[in-house]
Amino acid sequence: MNRFVYLDNNATTKLSERVKEKIKPYLDLQFGNPSNLYNFGKQVKQEINNAREEVAKFINCKAENIIFTSGGSEGNCAAINSAIKQLPNKKKIITTKVEHASILEYCKLLEKQGYNVVYLNVNNKGELDLGSLEKELDENVACVSIQFANNETGIIFDIEKIKKIIEAKKKQFDFVWHMDCVQALSKVPLDMQMLNADICSFSGHKIHAPKGCGFMYIKQPNTFIPLIAGHQENNLRGGTENVIGILAIGESIKEIRENFDKNLNTMINIHGYLEEELEKIKCITINAKSSPRLQNTTSITFSNTNGNEIMFALERYGICVSTGSACNSQSSEPSYVLRAMNLTKPENVVRISINEMTIKSQIDYFIENLKLCIKE
Amino acid sequence: MNRFVYLDNNATTKLSERVKEKIKPYLDLQFGNPSNLYNFGKQVKQEINNAREEVAKFINCKAENIIFTSGGSEGNCAAINSAIKQLPNKKKIITTKVEHASILEYCKLLEKQGYNVVYLNVNNKGELDLGSLEKELDENVACVSIQFANNETGIIFDIEKIKKIIEAKKKQFDFVWHMDCVQALSKVPLDMQMLNADICSFSGHKIHAPKGCGFMYIKQPNTFIPLIAGHQENNLRGGTENVIGILAIGESIKEIRENFDKNLNTMINIHGYLEEELEKIKCITINAKSSPRLQNTTSITFSNTNGNEIMFALERYGICVSTGSACNSQSSEPSYVLRAMNLTKPENVVRISINEMTIKSQIDYFIENLKLCIKE
Repeated sequence: MNRFVYLDNNATTKLSERVKEKIKPYLDLQFGNPSNLYNFGKQVKQEINNAREEVAKFINCKAENIIFTSGGSEGNCAAINSAIKQLPNKKKIITTKVEHASILEYCKLLEKQGYNVVYLNVNNKGELDLGSLEKELDENVACVSIQFANNETGIIFDIEKIKKIIEAKKKQFDFVWHMDCVQALSKVPLDMQMLNADICSFSGHKIHAPKGCGFMYIKQPNTFIPLIAGHQENNLRGGTENVIGILAIGESIKEIRENFDKNLNTMINIHGYLEEELEKIKCITINAKSSPRLQNTTSITFSNTNGNEIMFALERYGICVSTGSACNSQSSEPSYVLRAMNLTKPENVVRISINEMTIKSQIDYFIENLKLCIKE
Repeated sequence: MNRFVYLDNNATTKLSERVKEKIKPYLDLQFGNPSNLYNFGKQVKQEINNAREEVAKFINCKAENIIFTSGGSEGNCAAINSAIKQLPNKKKIITTKVEHASILEYCKLLEKQGYNVVYLNVNNKGELDLGSLEKELDENVACVSIQFANNETGIIFDIEKIKKIIEAKKKQFDFVWHMDCVQALSKVPLDMQMLNADICSFSGHKIHAPKGCGFMYIKQPNTFIPLIAGHQENNLRGGTENVIGILAIGESIKEIRENFDKNLNTMINIHGYLEEELEKIKCITINAKSSPRLQNTTSITFSNTNGNEIMFALERYGICVSTGSACNSQSSEPSYVLRAMNLTKPENVVRISINEMTIKSQIDYFIENLKLCIKE
């Protein structure tokens, strides 16, 4: 394997050079506990707060609305947990059939505790059943949890319409609106004031920070009930801070903000080129081609070839793609996301997810070897 | 500041050289998602499982009894959460007045949800009120959460007696016994078969791994109810694995195991020397001197000097000690641990916590400058 072409950035990403530089001293001599009262620790605390400011600036909110977590899954569970604890008499939750495993598995646990969970359908374009959202959103609902964009297909929900329905219902009922923004971060502009959700969750390792860190936006911190108790993060999330992860997120977000338009344009161009080339291959269909999608994600179905076989064949050429979410890869079933969309042959699907650093020659190398793999 | 003497290892520790070497490739080219089905990710998964084996070997259990977490606080909350979800009809929790903030704050949240929490007393030697433990442990109890050793005083509870009471009660009632083993790890031999607790929580950054990682021992994984849902960690803890943190824990535990007796002897010697020298200073009392304590922790009370003043004065000489748990440092109150022990002048307390790398000349430097600070 003499070449390495990584096209699985929705699964995880590599640390950027700036992130690596930023965290280096904190893996070494700067190991103070940010909660220490003395300077050796307080300097670390200051860096954490700088990172918080960077995050807040990027998604347009105040630093006090941001808490750092261990990742997107914690954020997702913490959001729903807070909602049901804030509204203990409401025993209904609304989510969708295409949410991340952390949401769906958490909802399964809640069903066992007596909660009624409504899983909204999507159609074969990946569009959410908004009629059911409106119908189901009644006085019993504690939490509505809907993703911004899907990690397997890249499909972006119609946020404007969802927002309109939810804001109208908010005038009648009290509930918490949570959005899983993990896949959207850095790929679409996110403005917490425009979005107006109550809680949003984000992950670090999808944006060049290490695995095991993330953050949440919380509109009303004074109402939030922690999943992990303790005095850190303004009493909203206990546990000694993941200093490396937090500073990495801060630096990465800063880098993303400084290069946002340029990177997005680059990505749109390469993504367009990738899809043009894919469409030239007869046995391939691009899934939900016409739907609004993240400009880094392409889900394809092969007419006659199993996705896993293609994935393993491509790795022999040093190319990484995947067949679904890494977070569900233990399952031998084809992806529930693709099945929810009623896609034919979900077992024949492969996901390609680029990033702002993917270049044309990598796409050419991928297409060339993909053709070889199909022949095999 | 031309010298740096770090005597606050109960707050956090520096990465060891072996840990730094171990994680280096995973901060760089080895960035695969351990859940990926292809080799680039599977190699990382294999390393995670190796780390799990190391941990299991060190505390004498099977790898399947270990899950990795974001740290001690998550483990503490996850243990109690699982207990109350496993036994939803039992609304009583027993803990102690000297537990870590994550336990006490979690219990406060549960009190608001209608739980009855019993906080057991300790005497001025830090000994637990075992009579009350026995009396309170009735059919209503879902969880008993007791620490192994205290982070501020180093006092080790009488585990044998606690175990005897709990094992007798287990014959009558069904409840979960959780132990917070964060401070004990690497300082006393820990054997999960001998201890026989149901769940134990541990932290990485107290043993030379980075902040933001930890692990739990779970005796019966099939009964455990996750705090963070998802398919990772055998469905017991969702979220993309903190690869850096987990591999650091594995390497650190391996290093600790290989050097355990040697390091413990070194630490006992240096700790003895530290306390001898401290006792020569008239205005200093060593707290709970005669109680079983961790051989790295010394809590002292000054007859006439405020602990914070000493701490800040020492930092001018490059020496780090603390006045209590970093996890409570936001509070201006003197430590609740010391108040629970009815220590006079808890505001005059300073904690010194060494590790296996602390050497005699550092203790000399500390004692010399401590005397200067007292004079000032």
